[in-house]
Amino acid sequence: MTISLEELQLAARNHGMPLEALRYDLTPVGLHYLLIHYDIPVVDPAAWRLQVGGLVERELSLGIDELRTWPAVELVATMECAGNGRARLEPRPVSQPWLHEAVGTAAWRGVSLPALLAEAGVRDEAVEVVFTGLDRGIEGEIEQRFARSLPVAEAAAGEAVLAYEVNGQPLPPQHGYPLRLVVPGWYGMANVKWLASIEVVGEPFSGFQQAAGYRWRTDETDPGRPLTRMLPRALMVPPGIPEFMTRHRTLETGSVVLEGRAWSGIAPVERVEVSVDGGRTWGDARLGEAPSRWAWRPWWFEWEAEPGECELRCRAADGAGNVQPDEPQWNVGGYANNATQRVPVTVRRRTLA
Amino acid sequence: MTISLEELQLAARNHGMPLEALRYDLTPVGLHYLLIHYDIPVVDPAAWRLQVGGLVERELSLGIDELRTWPAVELVATMECAGNGRARLEPRPVSQPWLHEAVGTAAWRGVSLPALLAEAGVRDEAVEVVFTGLDRGIEGEIEQRFARSLPVAEAAAGEAVLAYEVNGQPLPPQHGYPLRLVVPGWYGMANVKWLASIEVVGEPFSGFQQAAGYRWRTDETDPGRPLTRMLPRALMVPPGIPEFMTRHRTLETGSVVLEGRAWSGIAPVERVEVSVDGGRTWGDARLGEAPSRWAWRPWWFEWEAEPGECELRCRAADGAGNVQPDEPQWNVGGYANNATQRVPVTVRRRTLA
Repeated sequence: MTISLEELQLAARNHGMPLEALRYDLTPVGLHYLLIHYDIPVVDPAAWRLQVGGLVERELSLGIDELRTWPAVELVATMECAGNGRARLEPRPVSQPWLHEAVGTAAWRGVSLPALLAEAGVRDEAVEVVFTGLDRGIEGEIEQRFARSLPVAEAAAGEAVLAYEVNGQPLPPQHGYPLRLVVPGWYGMANVKWLASIEVVGEPFSGFQQAAGYRWRTDETDPGRPLTRMLPRALMVPPGIPEFMTRHRTLETGSVVLEGRAWSGIAPVERVEVSVDGGRTWGDARLGEAPSRWAWRPWWFEWEAEPGECELRCRAADGAGNVQPDEPQWNVGGYANNATQRVPVTVRRRTLA
Repeated sequence: MTISLEELQLAARNHGMPLEALRYDLTPVGLHYLLIHYDIPVVDPAAWRLQVGGLVERELSLGIDELRTWPAVELVATMECAGNGRARLEPRPVSQPWLHEAVGTAAWRGVSLPALLAEAGVRDEAVEVVFTGLDRGIEGEIEQRFARSLPVAEAAAGEAVLAYEVNGQPLPPQHGYPLRLVVPGWYGMANVKWLASIEVVGEPFSGFQQAAGYRWRTDETDPGRPLTRMLPRALMVPPGIPEFMTRHRTLETGSVVLEGRAWSGIAPVERVEVSVDGGRTWGDARLGEAPSRWAWRPWWFEWEAEPGECELRCRAADGAGNVQPDEPQWNVGGYANNATQRVPVTVRRRTLA
C-alpha cells in the first residue's frame, strides 16, 4: 500500500471512530467519524440565517434563535461516510483513505425538515431540494460551496432533521455549527453541515457533489448514479489487545463474547453472522435492540477461543434482502464498499494458572 | 511518499487538529489532537480507584468522587504529540504519521498533583514518579500498560494536574476518563490517560515507554534520552480556500491578515516571524496574550497579497533562546520535529469588480 502525501493530509485531518467505540449506543462527541470536506467555516451566530427559497409559496429567513422556538424533534441515527472502505479497494481510488471506521451514531436534536418545508409550502413542480453549506473550496477546478440535493419526497415526507444539538450539547464547529442537516439512513454526504440555504428546484440538481462527486460509477465512461442510502454493514470490536504498530490482536484461550454493531439505511438489520475461521463456517449472532429505527443494532457472539491464528469476520443482512459481500465491488470513486470486516487474531494459552 | 497499511491504520484512528481550529483559544472537544496508544479501555467508574504508593509515607486509594472533594485547580495547557512532524522526516520513521497538526489547547480541571503527593508524603530517597494507565497493548514484544515517569521535582513541585474535566465537561473516554495526568509544557506522552496508579520510585523508571519508546536517539546505537518538554512551534491557519484533494490554498489579492498560534514548553514565546517569500525575508508578527503561561499565544501578520505563487512560513522563538529550525533534525523515533511550517498558496486577482 502506497498512500500519497495528499491522502495522508486528509487522513490526518479527518478521522474514523476507533472500533472499540462500537461499545457505546451513542458515540461520544470526538469519537464519531468526521469528514470535513473543505475547511470548518467561521460562523457568526448573530449574523447567520437559514434562507429557504426556490419553488415555495413563502420564502423563509430564520435565525438560530427563531429555529429554537419551533417544536424540537430528536433523531438517533447512525451515519457512515460513503467512502468507508475505500482504502480496501484495489486499485485504490485516491481520496480520503478510509479502511472501515468512518461511522458513528448520535442523537441529533432540531427542527423537522418536513415541518419546515410545509411552512414554506413546496410547490407542485418541485423535483428536488438543494442544501448548501458555508464550507468553500475548489474541486474539479470549480470553486464551490458544498451542496447536495434530496428528492422532494424524501425531504418533504421523510424524517430528516435540521439539527442544532448533538448528544445533548450545542453542535460543535466540526459537526456543522450552528445548523446541519441529518438524513436518516443516508450516507454522510447528504448530511450537509454549516447549512446556509435550502432551495426547492424544478430539475435535478447539477452541482459538483451531485453530478460529479459521490456517484456510483463502474468505470470512467459511466455517468453513474448518486449515492443515497447506506448498504448494510456489521463491525466488531476487535477482541483482545493490540500490538501498537500493526494493531494485530492477541487474546487468551477460553470463552470470549465478540460484540459489535450492525446497520443498514435501507431496511432494519435482521441478521448478523460471525465466522471465526476466515469465512468457512458462519454462526448467527444474538441481536439486541437498536436505539432507534435509524441506528445500529448491537450484537453478541459467544466463542470458545482455541490456541492458534484465526481470522474473525462478521456480516449483516437487512430486511430488504441485502447481505454484505465477502469481496468489495470496485467503483471509480471508491464508494459503498461494505465487504465484510476481517480481524486476524492470535489466540494464546492463558499465561496465569 | 509511501505510507504503509500499518501507518494508515493509525492515521485513520488517531487524528490531528484541522489547522483552521487554530482560531480558537481553547480547542473544542473533538478537534484537539488525539493519540490513543493502544485501545480506549472500558472503565467502571464505581470500581475505579487511583492507587498511590511506593516511596510514600501514606499509601492512598481514592475513588473519583473522593478526588472531586479535593480543592479543584484549573490548568489551561497546549499539548502536542512528541511525534508531531514525523511524516516530514526523510527517511520517515514508521509510526503514527503526523504532518504538523498533532496539537490542541484545553482547560483541564482536577486535583493538583503536588498536593496529592504532599498528602501521600514523598520520601527522601524518591527519584521518579511513575504513572500507569489502564490501556493495555503489546509493543517491542512486551505486553504492557502504558506508563511514563516524571522526575520527582517536576511531579512534586510543578503544576501538573490530575484532570477529571476538560473544557467544563466530564472527561470523555478518548481523553482518559475518569482521570488523566496533564503535565504543562511536556509532550503528550507524559500526559498519561486512564490513570490507574502513581508509584514513587527510587531509581529511574525502566518501562518500555521510558527506556525504549519516546526517546531522542540520533541513530540505532544511541541509547538516547527521554523526550520531555515541547520545543517552540508556530502554526498558521492556512489562508484562502482549499482544493479538496491536494489541500492547496487559493486566495485573492489584497490585504490579508495571516493568523496563528505559537507555543513552547520551555519558556514563553517571545517572537513569531512570518515569511511570505519562502524564507528569503522575515517580518515580525504581532503577538497577543496567551490564555495561560502554558498555552499558545495568538499572533497576526498583515500581508498585501500580490498575484502569483508563493510559500508562507512562520517560526517561533522562546525566552530561553530556542528558535524553530528551517530543516528538521532527523532522529530514530521521528520525534520533536519542529521545523517551520510551509504553506504554498496561489494568489489570484479578485474576480469581482
